[in-house]
Amino acid sequence: MDQKLRKDADAIIRASLDQVLPDEAVSRALREFRPGSGKVVLVAAGKAAWQMAKAAVDTLGKVDEGIVVTKYGHVMGEIPGVECCEAGHPVPDENSFASTQKALDLVNDLSEDDSVLFLLSGGGSALFEKPLVSGDELQDITKQLLACGADIVEMNTIRKRLSAVKGGRFALACAPANVFAIVLSDIIGDPLDMIASGPAYPDASTCEEALAIAKKYGLRMSLAAMDLLSQETPKTISNVTTKITGSVRELCGAAEKKCRELGYEPVLLTDQLACEAREAGAFLGAVLRTHAGDGKKLAFIAGGETVVHLTGKGLGGRNQELALAAAPLIKGVPGAAVFSFGSDGTDGPTDAAGGYADYETMDALAANGLDIAAVLKDNDAYHALLAADGLIVTGPTGTNVNDVSVALLAV
Amino acid sequence: MDQKLRKDADAIIRASLDQVLPDEAVSRALREFRPGSGKVVLVAAGKAAWQMAKAAVDTLGKVDEGIVVTKYGHVMGEIPGVECCEAGHPVPDENSFASTQKALDLVNDLSEDDSVLFLLSGGGSALFEKPLVSGDELQDITKQLLACGADIVEMNTIRKRLSAVKGGRFALACAPANVFAIVLSDIIGDPLDMIASGPAYPDASTCEEALAIAKKYGLRMSLAAMDLLSQETPKTISNVTTKITGSVRELCGAAEKKCRELGYEPVLLTDQLACEAREAGAFLGAVLRTHAGDGKKLAFIAGGETVVHLTGKGLGGRNQELALAAAPLIKGVPGAAVFSFGSDGTDGPTDAAGGYADYETMDALAANGLDIAAVLKDNDAYHALLAADGLIVTGPTGTNVNDVSVALLAV
Repeated sequence: MDQKLRKDADAIIRASLDQVLPDEAVSRALREFRPGSGKVVLVAAGKAAWQMAKAAVDTLGKVDEGIVVTKYGHVMGEIPGVECCEAGHPVPDENSFASTQKALDLVNDLSEDDSVLFLLSGGGSALFEKPLVSGDELQDITKQLLACGADIVEMNTIRKRLSAVKGGRFALACAPANVFAIVLSDIIGDPLDMIASGPAYPDASTCEEALAIAKKYGLRMSLAAMDLLSQETPKTISNVTTKITGSVRELCGAAEKKCRELGYEPVLLTDQLACEAREAGAFLGAVLRTHAGDGKKLAFIAGGETVVHLTGKGLGGRNQELALAAAPLIKGVPGAAVFSFGSDGTDGPTDAAGGYADYETMDALAANGLDIAAVLKDNDAYHALLAADGLIVTGPTGTNVNDVSVALLAV
Repeated sequence: MDQKLRKDADAIIRASLDQVLPDEAVSRALREFRPGSGKVVLVAAGKAAWQMAKAAVDTLGKVDEGIVVTKYGHVMGEIPGVECCEAGHPVPDENSFASTQKALDLVNDLSEDDSVLFLLSGGGSALFEKPLVSGDELQDITKQLLACGADIVEMNTIRKRLSAVKGGRFALACAPANVFAIVLSDIIGDPLDMIASGPAYPDASTCEEALAIAKKYGLRMSLAAMDLLSQETPKTISNVTTKITGSVRELCGAAEKKCRELGYEPVLLTDQLACEAREAGAFLGAVLRTHAGDGKKLAFIAGGETVVHLTGKGLGGRNQELALAAAPLIKGVPGAAVFSFGSDGTDGPTDAAGGYADYETMDALAANGLDIAAVLKDNDAYHALLAADGLIVTGPTGTNVNDVSVALLAV
């Protein structure tokens, strides 16, 4: 591994993450919060829920009541007046359902003078959930959707209709209280109805679309669940004000800025990447091969969220697969590196935020007796990158505004 | 379909193909041909051999002797002073061997004042072959190598040593005459030792490697063949000058030039694209979405050769799949189009050279009742693009220097 290149990569990763941390973003958004004369109830859901709630209570001084629902291991301490709960992600579990029920209880009897401060971040789809079917069936349907490669739009279209809180239904439960929603966007293009399945936003998807998705993937579900797919979600909501903060665009912008500081000429390719992870890696590798002779320090940046189709039982994540898949393309191309990381600091079910590969990674894999085709077939990028010293580990960042991939060429 | 955009696309396609047609490419390369005072002997092998030979004789006025070895059905007429032969491809046959022997006879007794004009194009591995073992044994060994999963480098390491012309041996046969080789490159990265197994290029592989491969796979061969594996191929060749022409790099360069003429700011992403066709389309679509607001006319160019994994029984090709897969990404993005075409004018088993999709293509598909996910699953891009008026038809071009994909943004 080229230590100088890796140092540049780490500096870019650090600078990018710093820009999208929730604390500053939340306190900025709160300047526009005008609570009524009644209570202020805080409900925070998602992987950044604890940080967002902490920032909000620090900024406001106090809230009357509140609840945080976040991923296991993501509660970092006590917050005055706020109950902090941890639950399952990416698959919701009984703790998701129980915590979400507590949130519903908190907002159930509010008056029009009361305010709900609703802090939403990525991962909210699983964490903030009260299913209208059994937890077992919801888990089964979610697993089916993950296994068949359904995209996030399709997943949410289905899950909104099986839920008491998604698709605008949480906002309805808060009425007549007013809801001030601060959203850390983790979906490309910031579609508010999709982030955490839009608990406080009118739902644009239709029953017809939900049924078409069920048919397309041959989803197996009970008659009761099938019936729920036909029940429409709210199309207008009048008691909610929403502020979007943080986005993959800001993440890419921060990466661009740091690349420029390090002497690279940055080229933003896209902030809406949504293709297969390993193919995006191969594409970026091909870009580096072509520009290897240009005699310029270049950095190609692609933000978004790629997908992985599981064919094996290995350990990894989309960012790790992307970086690893670039390795054969940049083998022996001096100064070439491709790295990719999730802004939440966790890539797939691993302790890594992403992966790094450079022109020497293939040699490191060979020295460890690893065949990259077999590794990718088994979706085992984690162990291969571990052997090649190519894991990016940041720890959970408390935010989630998608991923960013960078292809560096250091002449 | 946006007729103005399509017109730009067609102009870019036309200009790109014109640059890499054998006629133009060969006559450009011939500007550097400095024959000696003796004879000029022309030897042309490969799928574009006839066009290249015709262009050379037209440019030079005449040659003293010559031979063309091309695929069945590829001789388009007589060329003065040149014998035109057809032979088997992709599996060499007796006509390959006999024609290649004629070429060896032509260059056998040349002096240092004579010149060999050697014109090489894709398909030369099979067409230009004179085995040093029997044709039967060569076929048997080739089959064993294929069956045991040997890679292309291993196959060539063996086959070069069983051949009188591969691995630089044709150049040795020409000595002391000088060889001016013009190579139409159809392999990404232009590896001269790989194109037609490098008849006029030093061979980097060694006897040791050849024997190790024979041992590794337990290849069965005659003692004579085994003995040939121990005979070294030339490591330096001093009588050859090589010009690569009509490569995918020139194809991309011509596309860039035409884009600039049409007012687009061209960005060459890569000329070594090798990922899954539909994912490359999605990547390019994501690039256009992101830059849609830039207020500039942009053209992103990616050359190379993508791959398709068949999952259905439809009709299509890699260029058609790439363009079609971009359609959902650029739906409703004003002025956005993605098109992709093969320089040989035939994409997959179809009469189209490639495909074109723009911001209105999804509407055209919907109007025809076509679901893009189903179309892609069935690998049936041809019929979908036919319905959406998105086929690119050029007819066979007589050259093959890979594909080029262009993502246009005409704000």
